[in-house]
Amino acid sequence: MADYRELWSKLGIDLEKHDKLCAVLPELYGGVYLTQKNRPEGMNYFNLVVAEVHGLRIQELDDYKAQGGKVVGTFCVFVPDEVILAAKAIGVGLCSGSQFWVEDGEKVLPRNLCPLIKALMGAKVGGTCPYFQSCDMLIGETTCDGKKKAWEILNDYVPVHVMELPQMKREKNCKAWEEEIKEFISKMEELTENKVTVESLRQGIKTANAKRRALKRLYNLRKYKPSPISGLDVLLISQIAFYDDPDRFVEKLNELCDELDERVKKGVDEGKKRIMITGTPMALPNWKLHSIIEGLNAQVVVEETCTGTRYFENEVCEEGETIDDLVKNLADRYMKINCACFTPNTGRIDDIIKYVDEYHVDGVIDFNLSFCHTYAVEHKDVEKVLKEKDIPLIQIETDYSTEDSGQIKTRVEAFLEMI
Amino acid sequence: MADYRELWSKLGIDLEKHDKLCAVLPELYGGVYLTQKNRPEGMNYFNLVVAEVHGLRIQELDDYKAQGGKVVGTFCVFVPDEVILAAKAIGVGLCSGSQFWVEDGEKVLPRNLCPLIKALMGAKVGGTCPYFQSCDMLIGETTCDGKKKAWEILNDYVPVHVMELPQMKREKNCKAWEEEIKEFISKMEELTENKVTVESLRQGIKTANAKRRALKRLYNLRKYKPSPISGLDVLLISQIAFYDDPDRFVEKLNELCDELDERVKKGVDEGKKRIMITGTPMALPNWKLHSIIEGLNAQVVVEETCTGTRYFENEVCEEGETIDDLVKNLADRYMKINCACFTPNTGRIDDIIKYVDEYHVDGVIDFNLSFCHTYAVEHKDVEKVLKEKDIPLIQIETDYSTEDSGQIKTRVEAFLEMI
Ligand code: SF4
Ligand code: SF4
Ligand code: SF4
Ligand code: SF4
Repeated sequence: MADYRELWSKLGIDLEKHDKLCAVLPELYGGVYLTQKNRPEGMNYFNLVVAEVHGLRIQELDDYKAQGGKVVGTFCVFVPDEVILAAKAIGVGLCSGSQFWVEDGEKVLPRNLCPLIKALMGAKVGGTCPYFQSCDMLIGETTCDGKKKAWEILNDYVPVHVMELPQMKREKNCKAWEEEIKEFISKMEELTENKVTVESLRQGIKTANAKRRALKRLYNLRKYKPSPISGLDVLLISQIAFYDDPDRFVEKLNELCDELDERVKKGVDEGKKRIMITGTPMALPNWKLHSIIEGLNAQVVVEETCTGTRYFENEVCEEGETIDDLVKNLADRYMKINCACFTPNTGRIDDIIKYVDEYHVDGVIDFNLSFCHTYAVEHKDVEKVLKEKDIPLIQIETDYSTEDSGQIKTRVEAFLEMI
Repeated sequence: MADYRELWSKLGIDLEKHDKLCAVLPELYGGVYLTQKNRPEGMNYFNLVVAEVHGLRIQELDDYKAQGGKVVGTFCVFVPDEVILAAKAIGVGLCSGSQFWVEDGEKVLPRNLCPLIKALMGAKVGGTCPYFQSCDMLIGETTCDGKKKAWEILNDYVPVHVMELPQMKREKNCKAWEEEIKEFISKMEELTENKVTVESLRQGIKTANAKRRALKRLYNLRKYKPSPISGLDVLLISQIAFYDDPDRFVEKLNELCDELDERVKKGVDEGKKRIMITGTPMALPNWKLHSIIEGLNAQVVVEETCTGTRYFENEVCEEGETIDDLVKNLADRYMKINCACFTPNTGRIDDIIKYVDEYHVDGVIDFNLSFCHTYAVEHKDVEKVLKEKDIPLIQIETDYSTEDSGQIKTRVEAFLEMI
């Protein structure tokens, strides 16, 4: 691996602290990922991306910035990448998944808060994430109480533009979301000094759609019995989708899918239990639940989460003559995402039921990051409907620490035996 | 006290469980309130209201319903009472403040949730609150994650109409709030079969303004040194404001203020420490923090909370020719409420600073109900500004249980010694 210390230094990284983070990741990755048997060849690219997580891609961002390009960080799948692409900026998804950052986050945030929010805050406050350091602007949203208020603090460190996501899905809410997207376009134009045109926005949509299509292709392959790829590997691919170069990512993912097409033909079902995970996102490197489940010889075959289906389902219509047309297409697609931050959010339950069928799911795990109120309260509804349909379900509430891993393992084990 | 068991029974109250609640309240009230020395005569009315909390007023609601009237429950100071009054319905504020209901709430909600939300849910689910049982409809709002999602569950028990409160205060948000108020008017017209007219809405505004003016008068009296009334008594009055008959309430409160005017003339300052409480609401019978503070011979002189200034500050303009005019006046006034559910919410900090001055405050206590994310995160900002201005501050995070009372007492005691 190349030496990036100079680059990190330039970005204002706390090198000493960062070294500790760099020491943790390869070990974790080695234990969880490289011990998997019979992995597809195509995973080599994604191994490389992880090995170079704070190197190669950061160098690319830096080179882009040296040419006057801008880098923009996002935290939620509602923020339209298409707009960032259309303004010729690079977007990186920053939903931080490591316990490493939690401690620094707790210096400015209450402890009783979702680990994702504490981690994203800690990454910036502690100056230990080169992605954060590379960002010229962050894009927040008003999806949950914790994030909504965290932007106010984060804004002291780096400019944050906040998009107001509606809380319901009535017609007027969709209109309001169109307005927010238009404001976002102006903001991006201002930042990058690039005009967003009908053609650049259409190109942005095409690029994002290609990514969605490739991920959908990957997920479709998981519907086979056996799935030709582990849940862990798919989770990693989804996580990498948030920050890798989109064109390269699509190319590499499609190569992998070609390989998986072949595997499917030769697959022999070993009768592994097929698990769906639904709930809150799992940001890199949060592999905790997947690694427990697959360590118990079951297989995660679908994630109804924002690092899963919610990220890629539904393409944006590419037709339209004006910016307004395309913005409407964007709003239409994005308002189809079924996040618990909406009330009501019955679409999510419909999705879960549909995926149980499509992915031949034996049991569902409702995964809640601690202190995420919206998903925690919505669990009652998930439980009610799955019970009616006789689909086995457990809820796992946890954070990024490993303290409860043993306990979770015991619960998952019991669940797998029951189904 | 009259026997209301028949009435309660008719309302579907779980009588046995309710008896337990009825046994707790007088004892608590006696200990906290009736032991206060030298209380104003005018508090007798409010003593009576508490003694009859599940009796007299419930009988009034029942009589009103017998004539075809409707009763509507609310949970947040953003829901405009004026509209309920204009539709000739009776509004009752239901922000539940007793630990008694928490257990039943936890049957359908996660434990890691604000006690206010668990209590309101438990009151309905357990069928132990005659106010809930009297309501033909509840009005929810999308202020915080927990409440927003709780309405979905509550709606299985009683119809809930949800108002979408904007999350920012830009011009378009104020417009959106006007729209929500208009929808609320239609909803109330439908429920009551009474048309809301310019005159009935104006009358509603006048009634609500009169209540605001009386409360403001009371609060202005607290600015004197010494305040002629305890913080405990004022808190009780504020709590009763949410469900008492508004005209009678105003009359009785003004009588009390006449008496306090006299007291002010004779007041001799004993140099008690003057405390402001800021933060989350204290619903009846949550007297925990006030009773600790005043038990330590300090005095609460102002509450920057929704059971304090946020409830009555800023009157609604009574001028206007059309419903639209009056709705705009309503939206203008309500959007001035500085709740932490908005981002940003700098107006609240300005209010705190202003009140420190106006009420001659020696120290501020930031009171957070556990798991209320918005206020907990906003604490950082409160802390920063008060530190700059050298105003002493502590944060107390607690719920409705009494387990931590000793610990809170110790902390408050140390704080009082320091200031
Ligand atoms: S769970 Fe909701 S708020 Fe979180 S990233 Fe997904 S859409 Fe955004
Ligand atoms: S998991 Fe929940 S609390 Fe955490 S950032 Fe996402 S929506 Fe917010
Ligand atoms: S604190 Fe905010 S959400 Fe709660 S009652 Fe007050 S205004 Fe409503
Ligand atoms: S105190 Fe906070 S969490 Fe509780 S109901 Fe009010 S805004 Fe919601």
